[in-house]
Amino acid sequence: MTDSAETASDRSRVRRHPERAGYERKQAYAILDAGQIAHVGFAVDGQPFVIPMLYARLDDSVLLHGNVGSRLLRHLASGAACCLTVTHLDGWVLARSHFNHSANYRSVVVFGSACSIEDPERKAIALAHLVDALIPGRAADSRPSDPQELAATSLLEIRIDDCSVKSRSGPPKDHPDDLDWPTWAGVIPLALTPGTPEPALDLLAGQPLPDYLRSGRAMR
Amino acid sequence: MTDSAETASDRSRVRRHPERAGYERKQAYAILDAGQIAHVGFAVDGQPFVIPMLYARLDDSVLLHGNVGSRLLRHLASGAACCLTVTHLDGWVLARSHFNHSANYRSVVVFGSACSIEDPERKAIALAHLVDALIPGRAADSRPSDPQELAATSLLEIRIDDCSVKSRSGPPKDHPDDLDWPTWAGVIPLALTPGTPEPALDLLAGQPLPDYLRSGRAMR
Repeated sequence: MTDSAETASDRSRVRRHPERAGYERKQAYAILDAGQIAHVGFAVDGQPFVIPMLYARLDDSVLLHGNVGSRLLRHLASGAACCLTVTHLDGWVLARSHFNHSANYRSVVVFGSACSIEDPERKAIALAHLVDALIPGRAADSRPSDPQELAATSLLEIRIDDCSVKSRSGPPKDHPDDLDWPTWAGVIPLALTPGTPEPALDLLAGQPLPDYLRSGRAMR
Repeated sequence: MTDSAETASDRSRVRRHPERAGYERKQAYAILDAGQIAHVGFAVDGQPFVIPMLYARLDDSVLLHGNVGSRLLRHLASGAACCLTVTHLDGWVLARSHFNHSANYRSVVVFGSACSIEDPERKAIALAHLVDALIPGRAADSRPSDPQELAATSLLEIRIDDCSVKSRSGPPKDHPDDLDWPTWAGVIPLALTPGTPEPALDLLAGQPLPDYLRSGRAMR
């Protein structure tokens, strides 16, 4: 019981320190906006499930989408409590001791509940936003969804009720006694990096790679 | 209620098709062994939580570790149901239509419950395995945990009761009517890539970068 009481207090802590909340939201949104996949958690009769999903932030919400038949989306749309986590692994931190090995990372945990976007116009805008948030410039360069496609797609908006950020950066922190241990120590940076584009086999002759795909930085 | 019944049946499907289970385990273990961060889900009074954690697979279990004070680890060690998901984003799939945009990925969802490893010798072995699973070759090249460090570390073993794999690979699948849409289509591969190592400022003079850090491939 102590555990759940502590957890409940944790969930609401951000709300009770609005100055921190504002700061955390700014940090949290930067981490969300740099991410691609959210791990979405929900519980059914006490059994937790964690499902990876593409997402995009829009104002104070996170958008998720999928097939109208998706059980996960239907469950969330029914108002079930939801937790959604995004993590970037930024590097390995190699210390002199096993104990002080670590990872550099940024993560955000979002709590909220979902509602379904039903209006076809809002759905089309949200789907275009999803495409563009993940690959900036792409939405205007590909065919928008038609009414049949919109009807086949569930779109959920999860209001970010509260969120918390955790991160680590910088070099290893070794115990002073360990500094003469004869090994290399430092950080190996890690980043999700785009490789060489692979054109579709049925690509129209003469279709060039668009500018927005030429710089890896343009993509999340 | 239909939802939870369906979900429960989903959770056990692997057990009811042992031939598929074996196949899925092999696939699941390859995905786990290529990963770094697991998103660990649990529920407290119906509220789901999803927390990112470093992990390593050992036989039919996943190892997690953290500070003995960690509420998450204490909660899991009490036998709470747990779901643990690992996802690799392998690329953006750019189709002619918004609707057919997708991602290439590999993911595994693991269900199990945790028990705590208390024996100091087993703990030390498991911690060395965690270091080596993430950075092969590193455990032997750094200082093993001392009794005080072992006492400060919680180590959990989550038995993989069942698991399920989902993945997508390959080019976009466009509707035939869309093939003459005037845009580039194909796949932008993505991979977590190591950058230039950053030596610690207090590194002993003359400590070379070890061979196991010279090839990005050697690391997860």
